[in-house]
Amino acid sequence: MIVGVGIDVVPVERFARALARTGGLADRLFTADEQRTSTGGPRTAESLAARFAAKEAFAKALGSPGGMIWIDSEVRTDDRGRPYFVYSGTVLATATGLGVERVHVSLSHDGGIASAMVIAETA
Amino acid sequence: MIVGVGIDVVPVERFARALARTGGLADRLFTADEQRTSTGGPRTAESLAARFAAKEAFAKALGSPGGMIWIDSEVRTDDRGRPYFVYSGTVLATATGLGVERVHVSLSHDGGIASAMVIAETA
Amino acid sequence: MIVGVGIDVVPVERFARALARTGGLADRLFTADEQRTSTGGPRTAESLAARFAAKEAFAKALGSPGGMIWIDSEVRTDDRGRPYFVYSGTVLATATGLGVERVHVSLSHDGGIASAMVIAETA
Repeated sequence: MIVGVGIDVVPVERFARALARTGGLADRLFTADEQRTSTGGPRTAESLAARFAAKEAFAKALGSPGGMIWIDSEVRTDDRGRPYFVYSGTVLATATGLGVERVHVSLSHDGGIASAMVIAETA
Repeated sequence: MIVGVGIDVVPVERFARALARTGGLADRLFTADEQRTSTGGPRTAESLAARFAAKEAFAKALGSPGGMIWIDSEVRTDDRGRPYFVYSGTVLATATGLGVERVHVSLSHDGGIASAMVIAETA
Repeated sequence: MIVGVGIDVVPVERFARALARTGGLADRLFTADEQRTSTGGPRTAESLAARFAAKEAFAKALGSPGGMIWIDSEVRTDDRGRPYFVYSGTVLATATGLGVERVHVSLSHDGGIASAMVIAETA
């Protein structure tokens, strides 16, 4: 059964400007691991924007209860580049309260538009 | 089980121009409640575009059978801003015929792009 | 139960340029049937871009295992214009291996932005 769904679309330019303008924003939105690629270099604004879209979509799927901390959800990718969430703290508490057992996520970025969708499922 | 899914992306500018150009279009697409915010002011073009995307996505999730009236589905938001559908008439008849029991919807608007996704589920 | 989800957003202009620039790309991405409309005319770049987004979203929903051939999935539309996938070969093998029994897809194109979402479900 589906608990909730979320979609988010983020224009990359706007997001990159916000990151550049607001000191500390990157650290508030992303874990240290998220800010680097698997080879250790800095992640592009496009890729960060897609991860932010995923976190927004996840929050929507959980009903946007407020009080959730952005870095309590982390987007990781497996060997094949497939994204998945690891979550803890405020996000885990919200998800557990809703009976969420599986979280499906997909990302897209192309031509300046980053987007993500999330489906939270229970047993 | 999922009965159908829908996605829709609406460039806000195009949609705003269509609303301005076509007399009566707003009233054909949106209920009186949808045209106002919770504080009673007029809803922005961006927010209306997201609601239209949601109605389009809902129609797609129901297989776009034709004959559905736009204002037979209404997007409402709960206390936390989470969107949900209330539907009646032609839309209710279509959904009931397909065995739809739950409708999940999510909206997004940012930087001139409004979008929505819908999943229609049965028991 | 949901096996995987996929979203993809494709700027139509970029996609049209890629098709024009790269000889044989259309034939690598689309079956002969996909390249024509139901009335036999050539399909527009916008409509092809949406179909490509659908194939990308489907690949993501299957975990992007690599080795899948684009024309092993084909987007068709029923009498009412509702899209669905017919798939074979590499895509069928991947889907079968994951226990996929139903594939839901939705397309959107408007104002230069083509997008698609896919949900792969098991029994």
